[in-house]
Amino acid sequence: MSIFFDLLSRIPFSVVHGSSIFSSSTVIAITVFFTLICACIIIGHLLEENRWANESITSLLLGLVSGAVVLAVSKGHSSKILVFNEELFFIYLLPPIIFNAGFQVKKKQFFKNFSIILLFGVLGTIISFCLISLGAFLLFKKIGVTHLGVQDYLAVGAILSATDSVCTLQVLSQEETPFLYSAVFGEGVVNDATSIVLFNAVQKLDLSDITAMTPLSLAGTFLYLFFSSTALGIAVGLLSAYIIKALYIGRHSTDREIALMMLMAYISYLIAELISLSGILTVFFCGIVMSHYTWHNITESSRITTKHSFATISFISETFIFLYVGMDALDIDKWKESKASAGTSIAVSATLLALVLIGRASFVFPLANLSNFTKRGSEKIECRKQFIIWWAGLMRGAVTVALSYEEFSDSGESSSSEHSLMITSTIIVVLFSTLVFGSVTKPLIEALLGRNAVSAVSDATDIPSLEDLRLLFLETEGQSEEVNHQRKGSKFRFLISHPTWTAHHLWRKFDDKFMRPVFGGRGFVPYEPGSPTGAADRSHEH
Amino acid sequence: MSIFFDLLSRIPFSVVHGSSIFSSSTVIAITVFFTLICACIIIGHLLEENRWANESITSLLLGLVSGAVVLAVSKGHSSKILVFNEELFFIYLLPPIIFNAGFQVKKKQFFKNFSIILLFGVLGTIISFCLISLGAFLLFKKIGVTHLGVQDYLAVGAILSATDSVCTLQVLSQEETPFLYSAVFGEGVVNDATSIVLFNAVQKLDLSDITAMTPLSLAGTFLYLFFSSTALGIAVGLLSAYIIKALYIGRHSTDREIALMMLMAYISYLIAELISLSGILTVFFCGIVMSHYTWHNITESSRITTKHSFATISFISETFIFLYVGMDALDIDKWKESKASAGTSIAVSATLLALVLIGRASFVFPLANLSNFTKRGSEKIECRKQFIIWWAGLMRGAVTVALSYEEFSDSGESSSSEHSLMITSTIIVVLFSTLVFGSVTKPLIEALLGRNAVSAVSDATDIPSLEDLRLLFLETEGQSEEVNHQRKGSKFRFLISHPTWTAHHLWRKFDDKFMRPVFGGRGFVPYEPGSPTGAADRSHEH
Repeated sequence: MSIFFDLLSRIPFSVVHGSSIFSSSTVIAITVFFTLICACIIIGHLLEENRWANESITSLLLGLVSGAVVLAVSKGHSSKILVFNEELFFIYLLPPIIFNAGFQVKKKQFFKNFSIILLFGVLGTIISFCLISLGAFLLFKKIGVTHLGVQDYLAVGAILSATDSVCTLQVLSQEETPFLYSAVFGEGVVNDATSIVLFNAVQKLDLSDITAMTPLSLAGTFLYLFFSSTALGIAVGLLSAYIIKALYIGRHSTDREIALMMLMAYISYLIAELISLSGILTVFFCGIVMSHYTWHNITESSRITTKHSFATISFISETFIFLYVGMDALDIDKWKESKASAGTSIAVSATLLALVLIGRASFVFPLANLSNFTKRGSEKIECRKQFIIWWAGLMRGAVTVALSYEEFSDSGESSSSEHSLMITSTIIVVLFSTLVFGSVTKPLIEALLGRNAVSAVSDATDIPSLEDLRLLFLETEGQSEEVNHQRKGSKFRFLISHPTWTAHHLWRKFDDKFMRPVFGGRGFVPYEPGSPTGAADRSHEH
Repeated sequence: MSIFFDLLSRIPFSVVHGSSIFSSSTVIAITVFFTLICACIIIGHLLEENRWANESITSLLLGLVSGAVVLAVSKGHSSKILVFNEELFFIYLLPPIIFNAGFQVKKKQFFKNFSIILLFGVLGTIISFCLISLGAFLLFKKIGVTHLGVQDYLAVGAILSATDSVCTLQVLSQEETPFLYSAVFGEGVVNDATSIVLFNAVQKLDLSDITAMTPLSLAGTFLYLFFSSTALGIAVGLLSAYIIKALYIGRHSTDREIALMMLMAYISYLIAELISLSGILTVFFCGIVMSHYTWHNITESSRITTKHSFATISFISETFIFLYVGMDALDIDKWKESKASAGTSIAVSATLLALVLIGRASFVFPLANLSNFTKRGSEKIECRKQFIIWWAGLMRGAVTVALSYEEFSDSGESSSSEHSLMITSTIIVVLFSTLVFGSVTKPLIEALLGRNAVSAVSDATDIPSLEDLRLLFLETEGQSEEVNHQRKGSKFRFLISHPTWTAHHLWRKFDDKFMRPVFGGRGFVPYEPGSPTGAADRSHEH
């Protein structure tokens, strides 16, 4: 909430101060924002059945409208009651969203598609980064933007490679299209981490000392960050599971369990940032471990509470961010600062948008076909799905805006007008992609997959593998004898040709034998009769 | 979280900055605080069975220890990583605590004892305020404190009349001693509001223009604040109930319901503060209305979630506050500023503590005996209970510290050394009362009420009245015919002699006929089969 305090010095309408103990500007800002979030919730609910709208679009538009109102009230002085602040975004708003993503993800699907997710999220983001940087470098000069340095172009590549999957996930269904959901979702999380890591690497890059080793050292940094961040997240998650299991905290108070889970998850993010790791990756894996172990060690009502309250906090943060970006778009100081004509603005924005489209296409289709080489018939990613994956990652969101501010808001330099131009162009790309692409997504996916064809198309990759697994590991089952007999000899061959399932099998064995007895988890906590499991299941409905 | 940002400029140990996007001082402060809260939770859990310790004492001591550690690390420069800030306290930490108090209070008991609660909370606080102000005025001159003005003495009275019931409520049980719990709890909330209103009135007081009308105008202000704050809280609560009932938001998403309840409750507090009402009263009554109507309109899992997450947030805020006060106590700048000898410090603190003891005794015993005149035998407040009520309100806590900073931290004046002395003395009173009185409370209550004698003693006021009610209103019941017959004639007399029950009866009729059909509530929402009511009930266990 930092932001609320370096703000509103610019709000023009004065307020009766009264007996209030604290400064009323702060209170006004929070009141306005929270009221707007309430409005978003209600409007979002009313538009739930609408095929064009969704929550992101609603809050973005509401933000734009409120920005316009403030602009009108202040007679053109300022459009906002809050100054966009990366600290607010990265310390308070982003962690709950990513943690909740890890906490609610279907782990089986996620790890089953892990290779594809890593391929798209890491290699894909790097390809996109290179293409956008190169494209901007080559094209911007023709538009008339000449003062940007190499570092700026690289930063633009990193900034615009950060996808925003929140909007798409409101459209894709985890039940109907599990493969697409987990691929897009997983890619989104890994992509966030990759682009932030790339961005940090670019910021630290010493341009005077670029050798052939630079890419290698970048790759080394990336691998180090990836593995140590993941390890930290897993360690904190396991620690929370162990503490809650060993002390049986729910005996005295369910509130303590919930508080402990929330605080430890948040601490994992903060520690990662303190030791310069990727907090996003850390808190994501902390969420996965907590939902696998810790969540099963707490009481039934704590389970329901954590599941819903994490989702609620994440939901509020998302709405807040979109409102924020919407309001920020009308900041006229920035538009004045950029000094660019409407034509230049549009040209830069259009170029960036085209680069985003091309950059994503240039890795989704090749990489999907590459991965198809290693798959059997039904597991292949067909054309329609490739198209949806491409489309689902086109939206740009709050991470993009935040990184753009971080890179380009250091005013006082000679090139500050072009820096402002980059910020405004980024905001236009975010607005356009979210509003236009976002509203088309739902009808598009419906048209491509079809309401009734969904089960035929989407679950194709899931069913045969599950069958294989059952045949493979439940050896003493009497039924389906002939199939069993037919395949039993090829068990070893199956394990080799299905590395994912093999890994999963080995992991389950390891988990049951060593991990769960220590850290708890499903089946390792005494079952409580009469527990409201139905309610816990119903919580997935959202 | 404002505080985190005007801080740590004073922390002496530097940190490797790394690739982190935001300032690491902020992150360090939050990390340290959250880690300490985790430690408090775990230690509090381990000490649960201990009869001397409780959560408040644990966090206060842990705060003191961490303050000492920081002081040692910084080689005597500073004891804290956070500067105490009233804004943080009044905007972020206090509202969830008070809202949760209203949300979890047993409404029947609360309104049954409403007259006693108002008597103690309003009249009692005013008596205490007058006595402490007068006492300080008469005694401080003898100690050598001479530079304080009349306004300062009045402020001291208001500051030290604010009780802290958090600590006691961890000891009293809502199930075992419902009367004591609701009396102490209710008084605590009304007392908070009264002392803040008194404090604000004192701050606005124009000393040059005191006439006979001043007390009357103060009383008028108080009544206006009391009723309009209450009305605002009720209005926002009813609005939330109506929105959720009319739109049936849980159909699409439980998260929206939860978010809406949280945000609207918080908005009620903010609006009250904006229009200079008492946010505490508003959010308290908003909590009561929400638990009576809104809570019944949401889905079963939202009910469990809200109940627990509100309690958790409140719990975290409380722990945070005590840690904060503990750490703040070792702020050596303030001790140096006060320039007082140890003797003067101790004399002032001891005087204040004695005034607190006398001030509370001087209204608890007379008012309790006054109320006994209007009661029948078993409803009278006996001596032991009067003593417990007196003792339970002796602790002073965060509200006292926050108000003390508000009044005395405006440095730069000539009398600033005595102002600092007042702050340090207030902190000593808070520490002493919480640590010493707090740790004695549990054994004391056990000794007075007795482990086994509890039901005989405590529920005495409850049982006959309930019986009366059943006889009175369930007229068609065939059983217990003779008693029924015996009392039926005296129905009117009963109604007159039991105004509380009469009011309750009329309210129930009104509620069922007009309110619940519009705003929902128990029995006016379709029952969902298989709902985990057991889990909801278990949530009371805490």
